[in-house]
Amino acid sequence: MEKSGEAKWRFGAANPALEAASRQSIRSLVRRVYDCLDTSDPRPVAPFGHGDPSVFACFRTAAAAAEAVAAAVLSGKHSRYSPAAGVADARATSCVLTAGCNHAIEIMMAVLASPGANVLLPRPGYPTYEARAALCGLEFRHFDLVPEKGWEVDLDGVEALADENTVAMVIVNPNNPCGSVYSYDHLAKIAETARKLGVLVISDEVYGHCVFGSKPFVPMGVFGETAPVVTLGGISKRWMVPGWRLGWIAASDPKGVIRDKKVIQSIISYCGISVDPVTFVQGAIPQIIANTDEAFFENAMNVMREAAEICYQKLNDIDCITCPHKPEGSMVVMVKLDLSCLDGIDDDVDFCTKVAREESVVICPESGLGMKDWLRITFAVDRPLLEDGLERVKSFCKRHGKAKEVK
Amino acid sequence: MEKSGEAKWRFGAANPALEAASRQSIRSLVRRVYDCLDTSDPRPVAPFGHGDPSVFACFRTAAAAAEAVAAAVLSGKHSRYSPAAGVADARATSCVLTAGCNHAIEIMMAVLASPGANVLLPRPGYPTYEARAALCGLEFRHFDLVPEKGWEVDLDGVEALADENTVAMVIVNPNNPCGSVYSYDHLAKIAETARKLGVLVISDEVYGHCVFGSKPFVPMGVFGETAPVVTLGGISKRWMVPGWRLGWIAASDPKGVIRDKKVIQSIISYCGISVDPVTFVQGAIPQIIANTDEAFFENAMNVMREAAEICYQKLNDIDCITCPHKPEGSMVVMVKLDLSCLDGIDDDVDFCTKVAREESVVICPESGLGMKDWLRITFAVDRPLLEDGLERVKSFCKRHGKAKEVK
Repeated sequence: MEKSGEAKWRFGAANPALEAASRQSIRSLVRRVYDCLDTSDPRPVAPFGHGDPSVFACFRTAAAAAEAVAAAVLSGKHSRYSPAAGVADARATSCVLTAGCNHAIEIMMAVLASPGANVLLPRPGYPTYEARAALCGLEFRHFDLVPEKGWEVDLDGVEALADENTVAMVIVNPNNPCGSVYSYDHLAKIAETARKLGVLVISDEVYGHCVFGSKPFVPMGVFGETAPVVTLGGISKRWMVPGWRLGWIAASDPKGVIRDKKVIQSIISYCGISVDPVTFVQGAIPQIIANTDEAFFENAMNVMREAAEICYQKLNDIDCITCPHKPEGSMVVMVKLDLSCLDGIDDDVDFCTKVAREESVVICPESGLGMKDWLRITFAVDRPLLEDGLERVKSFCKRHGKAKEVK
Repeated sequence: MEKSGEAKWRFGAANPALEAASRQSIRSLVRRVYDCLDTSDPRPVAPFGHGDPSVFACFRTAAAAAEAVAAAVLSGKHSRYSPAAGVADARATSCVLTAGCNHAIEIMMAVLASPGANVLLPRPGYPTYEARAALCGLEFRHFDLVPEKGWEVDLDGVEALADENTVAMVIVNPNNPCGSVYSYDHLAKIAETARKLGVLVISDEVYGHCVFGSKPFVPMGVFGETAPVVTLGGISKRWMVPGWRLGWIAASDPKGVIRDKKVIQSIISYCGISVDPVTFVQGAIPQIIANTDEAFFENAMNVMREAAEICYQKLNDIDCITCPHKPEGSMVVMVKLDLSCLDGIDDDVDFCTKVAREESVVICPESGLGMKDWLRITFAVDRPLLEDGLERVKSFCKRHGKAKEVK
């Protein structure tokens, strides 16, 4: 210990779990691509890396929803602290409100992180699961989604992966990043597998009701009799308001397994020492639901269907990119890069780096998330920019195509 | 693995870190007191357990602040995802926006949780520090605040407690739960001690500017030349809007120590995989600040000064309770229970349980937080209920007073 001169500072940011966790983040992957943009390019950036439709007028939320929130804050009744589980009027009794669906993921990973436990996560998936599991020391193992089968879960793989320490499996439906929607039959098989393995099903339905293909959205909760289900959701996607941060955790637990295992109690304990959703947004929920016209949702899905269609057609028109499954839900699609058609492109990261620099198009490479040479593309972008951006990707691929192709 | 009959469910909520953490929560302590209330008592509950002035008309936030938030949500410009560090217009460059000050605490504990590290926390203190440190495996050690010295930090105790693995010390100023305000000189000594020990100062100033005694509020950041300071703050207390969830982490780092130690970088990494503050609340910040009249703050502090005065006088009038330091800031005060004056009261928990049951007054016992037979009392309550509630405490104490006293 010194009395004068330069002090020796002992502190530092060296939490290895945080370092491991923060590598698992769409935000950090997309940020690296944004850093490659050529700021002298006068063209608008085509933001295909991170799904945020709310920035486009065509996806603006229902006026009634914004008005409900404005009324709630002006009423002065909802400036107070929230109860840990959320405001009573805004939630069902088997439901806990969270500060967005990412927060719901954080809570579930923390609650299930008992020593030695592991959780099964989909690949491709949504990396907040990996990040939050890493942060709380919960082991995760990956099962595959099968592109040839409409990105269904490889259930044999799930069974091979599970052991006596496996506590849960996660599904995302409608699927991010694949744009697929699971059938009733496939969900039933998932429930049967979970029952066989004795694991909880965590069903991430933040894109619930965001379907625009032929398959209806089936909530996993209908299989609660077969296996206990915890459903994660939020208003971000359906109302196109990711910045409002309101999500939930709901249990489908007709046999009381989740209750008996004290999972709900532990969720509420975690909420008691975690971030609360904004009270007046919670307070507005009954009015948001009551006052949003069905026409808003229909219109939003019509615009999204058209965007998905354009995206699929334009991608099919690019030689070095293959889209194995036409999107029918969510706002995202996975496509495979065929490097053999391209000259001087090392991998998906190199592709995304160069597309950003040369074409001002931001696409998220998936190799950092275990899907080498795959790309994650968000089509929740207004039509002119979507078309223009995909044209730029096409001209990039032509320009970098193997010699035989440019002849 | 079984094919039929009752399944064996392997999952459960058994995260020992979460169990340890959730015991460290004002919410859980106060909840237990609420559970003791006699619901048949027609009198209003006197809520002295958890500071939330926003529920009372006299502490209602500035109309201009609520209008700024309403305008931001109605503009449609702030429904999008927030950047990890917060919306640029709403923050200074050396500042990261958080979903409230509790979230800022969560972030700092996670960032500093390197293996073997320990952090020094005040006793009495604000238990979110203990809870979040426990959750991420960061060891914490307690130094004392000295009631006879206006709840100043026992700096000799701090030096005795620190070792080569100590990374930071936390101070809360204006102080929760003591209601004290640190002088310039005391803060200077804290900075000198931190420098000597080589530790970061985390200064929790969520009650910044909430002073109504003779001492001015001095931000710890003015001592950044002596020791690096990270200041935690929020709009909850100054604007009386705890449900709006907007806080911040700001570095006072003129020598670049915090930067060189990559603490800011790590904070932003954590934000990238954590909850964001609501975007439109961030978007409203410039207007909230610009449009809130100084008269609002003056009036709020006048009401708080009066409440503190009433609270102090009424408490002094109760034989078995001693208030060592008249509150001059924050919204909370610590008082000592003298069990020798009481008959049939085992300890502070027993006292709070019975006061709740018999008098519908909620007070937080501090023994669970390391301060046996001390009570934490919030005076951010409107005047009639504050007076009535404290009268009820007085009559409770008389009724349960030792025989010699009821004679």
